[in-house]
Amino acid sequence: MVSKNVKLANHAGFCYGVKRAVDLSVKIKEDNPSTPVYILGQLIHNTQVIEYLSSIGIHTIETIPEKLNGICIIRTHGVTPQTIQELEQKECQIIDATCPDVKRVQNKARSLAEEGYKVIIIGKPDHPEVIAIKAHADLCSENEAIVISSEEEVEKYLSTIKKSKKIGIVIQTTQTHGNFKKILPIIAEYSTELKVYNTICSATFKRQQEAMTLAKEVELMIIVGSKSSANTTHLAEIVSQIKKTIHIETEKELDTYKDLINITSKIGITAGASTPGFIIDQVIERIGE
Amino acid sequence: MVSKNVKLANHAGFCYGVKRAVDLSVKIKEDNPSTPVYILGQLIHNTQVIEYLSSIGIHTIETIPEKLNGICIIRTHGVTPQTIQELEQKECQIIDATCPDVKRVQNKARSLAEEGYKVIIIGKPDHPEVIAIKAHADLCSENEAIVISSEEEVEKYLSTIKKSKKIGIVIQTTQTHGNFKKILPIIAEYSTELKVYNTICSATFKRQQEAMTLAKEVELMIIVGSKSSANTTHLAEIVSQIKKTIHIETEKELDTYKDLINITSKIGITAGASTPGFIIDQVIERIGE
Repeated sequence: MVSKNVKLANHAGFCYGVKRAVDLSVKIKEDNPSTPVYILGQLIHNTQVIEYLSSIGIHTIETIPEKLNGICIIRTHGVTPQTIQELEQKECQIIDATCPDVKRVQNKARSLAEEGYKVIIIGKPDHPEVIAIKAHADLCSENEAIVISSEEEVEKYLSTIKKSKKIGIVIQTTQTHGNFKKILPIIAEYSTELKVYNTICSATFKRQQEAMTLAKEVELMIIVGSKSSANTTHLAEIVSQIKKTIHIETEKELDTYKDLINITSKIGITAGASTPGFIIDQVIERIGE
Repeated sequence: MVSKNVKLANHAGFCYGVKRAVDLSVKIKEDNPSTPVYILGQLIHNTQVIEYLSSIGIHTIETIPEKLNGICIIRTHGVTPQTIQELEQKECQIIDATCPDVKRVQNKARSLAEEGYKVIIIGKPDHPEVIAIKAHADLCSENEAIVISSEEEVEKYLSTIKKSKKIGIVIQTTQTHGNFKKILPIIAEYSTELKVYNTICSATFKRQQEAMTLAKEVELMIIVGSKSSANTTHLAEIVSQIKKTIHIETEKELDTYKDLINITSKIGITAGASTPGFIIDQVIERIGE
């Protein structure tokens, strides 16, 4: 085994919105030890955090049950206005842990729809953040919002774009600038008036930029975080274009790459916004063994 | 000499705005045969048209003289609000032949500035249309508008772009979509709120698209029009990326390319928005000889 030089990115792991949501959830449970506490959907995209929350009595539920007593926490990705309405009809207290940056996108999408813009969301259509943003926009317009995830997909909507006098764009907070910059000019060519809120969150942007810089300095990049996390997956996508990259959820997966790691000296590590610090520490520790 | 197959683009020569300005000028002189008629700057970028107007008593002047009696026509590219004000103080009647599409850009630039957007004009800084648009925007803001003509130039203004909360973009009517699509994403990456009016005029857009299609079908493209005309020069730029291209002002220049034309069978012709039909006809005629 060669000697190891492991470098961790400065912006790795929990972002402000995730930390806020986890801290808030834990505090709610501490303050209300005898009240049932639920989260609708995964609070953040990280299995280990969900398991930890479950272990202290905060239960993740996938759908709203017939009866819901206690406290219900709204996940960082936000929910649709219809879901909020449905929860309000239950006998539960609602605690909103939606990331403030995500909330801002929902509000921007709503205001664009209200101002008569045909709303386009650049993002993955099945991601909970995007589903909620779309629902907020759709509430304020007869005109359904469009979700576009790739350059190729723009073609599919070109006739709608050409027909729309005013196009308003928001972006899923965890999208890459690369994808946004490929999609935007195609839309711009065919629209007369275009309003764009670049809602990629600054934490995501900094993390991506830093990961790219780090990737240039090392021989191998390790991205730590859930494979269902959009920002983590994007990090892996971006970095793999520059350097050999491994995307793992926990240190256990390192075993698969044992031979590669044994012969590698310079390793760079970064982690998605929903990856807790202790998992990053365990990865670094295992590499050093 | 091989037999000739010459194809003229459908959208070649005078656009609506140019035709309107030339017709208006001629009519003004016809209706006022004994009044001096002036145009401030070239009505359109075409020497032959300027010479024709001069021959019927419509005089092109480069600056506003001390005394100005008679009628003064505003060129298609528009002028600054300061110039209008200066003319209003003279004893002359002002006839505005600014292209309606150009006027629209001036108004959009003004409204963006009024709404607090930092205005960016994509275009050539020394082109009269751009000078006038910038002056209209600057009138409505303490914040001076920026003119960006190329991808490389964006870098120069990045710190200003990053500092501006709201960026508003308009485009010189005769720019290419290609240039716009290269510049826009770089600006978009660093701005939070962006409003874009795609003010490339539809005549310019159609002409460019048609020229590209035609270029693919022929062996040689001939672009007819003034070398000081932005839309004509852009046509030549675009087409030369696809096929061998000659840019000439009149049929006389064909002599230089005699050998090339003699061995070429399929020739495509298009002309800028300020090129009069008779010059296009003379070019076609000379090729046939």
